[in-house]
Amino acid sequence: MSDIDGRAVAKALRAEVAAEAARLRAEGIVPTLAVVVPTDDEGTAWYVRSIRKAAEKEGIDCRVEHLKAAPPNSVGLDEIVAKLQELSADPAVHGVICQTPLPEGVTLSQVGGYISPFKDVDGANSESLGRLAAGLRTFAPATAAAVLELLKREDLTLEGAKAVVVGRSTVVGKPAALLLLNESATVTVCHSRTKDLAAVCREADVLVAAVGRAGMIGADFVKPGATVIDVGTNPTEDGGLVGDVDYEAVAPIAGRLTPVPGGVGPVTTALLLRHTVVAAELTKTHG
Amino acid sequence: MSDIDGRAVAKALRAEVAAEAARLRAEGIVPTLAVVVPTDDEGTAWYVRSIRKAAEKEGIDCRVEHLKAAPPNSVGLDEIVAKLQELSADPAVHGVICQTPLPEGVTLSQVGGYISPFKDVDGANSESLGRLAAGLRTFAPATAAAVLELLKREDLTLEGAKAVVVGRSTVVGKPAALLLLNESATVTVCHSRTKDLAAVCREADVLVAAVGRAGMIGADFVKPGATVIDVGTNPTEDGGLVGDVDYEAVAPIAGRLTPVPGGVGPVTTALLLRHTVVAAELTKTHG
Repeated sequence: MSDIDGRAVAKALRAEVAAEAARLRAEGIVPTLAVVVPTDDEGTAWYVRSIRKAAEKEGIDCRVEHLKAAPPNSVGLDEIVAKLQELSADPAVHGVICQTPLPEGVTLSQVGGYISPFKDVDGANSESLGRLAAGLRTFAPATAAAVLELLKREDLTLEGAKAVVVGRSTVVGKPAALLLLNESATVTVCHSRTKDLAAVCREADVLVAAVGRAGMIGADFVKPGATVIDVGTNPTEDGGLVGDVDYEAVAPIAGRLTPVPGGVGPVTTALLLRHTVVAAELTKTHG
Repeated sequence: MSDIDGRAVAKALRAEVAAEAARLRAEGIVPTLAVVVPTDDEGTAWYVRSIRKAAEKEGIDCRVEHLKAAPPNSVGLDEIVAKLQELSADPAVHGVICQTPLPEGVTLSQVGGYISPFKDVDGANSESLGRLAAGLRTFAPATAAAVLELLKREDLTLEGAKAVVVGRSTVVGKPAALLLLNESATVTVCHSRTKDLAAVCREADVLVAAVGRAGMIGADFVKPGATVIDVGTNPTEDGGLVGDVDYEAVAPIAGRLTPVPGGVGPVTTALLLRHTVVAAELTKTHG
């Protein structure tokens, strides 16, 4: 088994992003990513700091918009929508993302529609998802795009491969399945209602785990030699992160496996940045 | 094996549509479907006549907009877009569909974006498809919706069932797969690049054939007792229609099977009409 090195892929991608950002700056365009943070979640705060740090390192301005409500109230749908509309209309902003978790009763699909598709660098607008399904040019959710980026850099053929995606979320499972389908894999989407999940997964040449349950993909889920992409980022009690794949159990069986941390995560961040410079580039033609 | 009677389902649906159309007319709203026809294809002309006849029978006005170019020119993208925008803005029109085939170089995904999602009764706008993928309220393409309508009226459990969709088109295969996923089936999408297609199909509790190749789904593609939905409508030399399923071969094996004609087709037309009255109903709140 060989580890798929997400950090190395991210490094290569970020070098390309930095070069592109420098080119844009030389033309007077400062690529800018706006991150809307509607809650006080600690995990989110950590993640947003890491995005900002990464962005600024590669020459992208990062504007964090932390929405606050007077306690005990939480930020409402209207305020999130207003901020997303404002940023979508602001010519100095090229990429807009809205961080989860959202306040209770608010869904990402609901607010995503207020992010301009031209700035929707994390594919939260259902129009972006529809364009993805239709095979049109669009921004895919960065995590789903990271799954494909990692697969395409490996020496394997996706065309005709059996791909199984475990998880059917709108942000990861479904877009990853659609991207794999665009690459001509035969794609199966599994979820909590799937019967004999291990047997279905064992058919996979490419297995994508995106369920959010620590270590649930064990040895009996994996065909010998399969490529396994672990999207899970489950916090451990000691402040670490583990994936959805039981790494120790699966490593001897899989052909290739992404570690957690160091797999999908860094590539996701790098692709958010790449999407932002692409969006900045688009302003030259779309204004 | 028992035939799934699409004509009976369509009849029941159309009775509901007629009642709803009568209610709307009593309120002064004349439900209206506009059909844009951008080419002179004979098959299309036949289909459009059948939609118009069905619509008018159930109390829906049908406005056929046949776009014509002076020969040898064909209708251009601009003219189609202008017509779709005009109809999308016309308060007297509730549903808008654009018939295929389109002129060379024009795709449905390209023009679909100009149909207002509120009037997009055949789900041609990629925003509609994205909303479907995100599990939001939207109009699914009528053919994909017909597949689900037929399945939901049968005495079978989609939750946890293995569903295999053969064909990955934007108008049928992908939306049918997304609808099945929303019903918690475990869904596999196959296509021309799938290896050992018969073996993959033989796993299916529910098999949806949407490839457009006469009789390609033979006996060896079907698990005994499976439910088979045949979306194919392939013209025969003698002016008839046959499905993608080899009916004679599969009938002894399948538990249930839709015939062609008389299966998905009439339900598709009925759902176009249902979508139109729903869209007319929507104007009361959305204007």
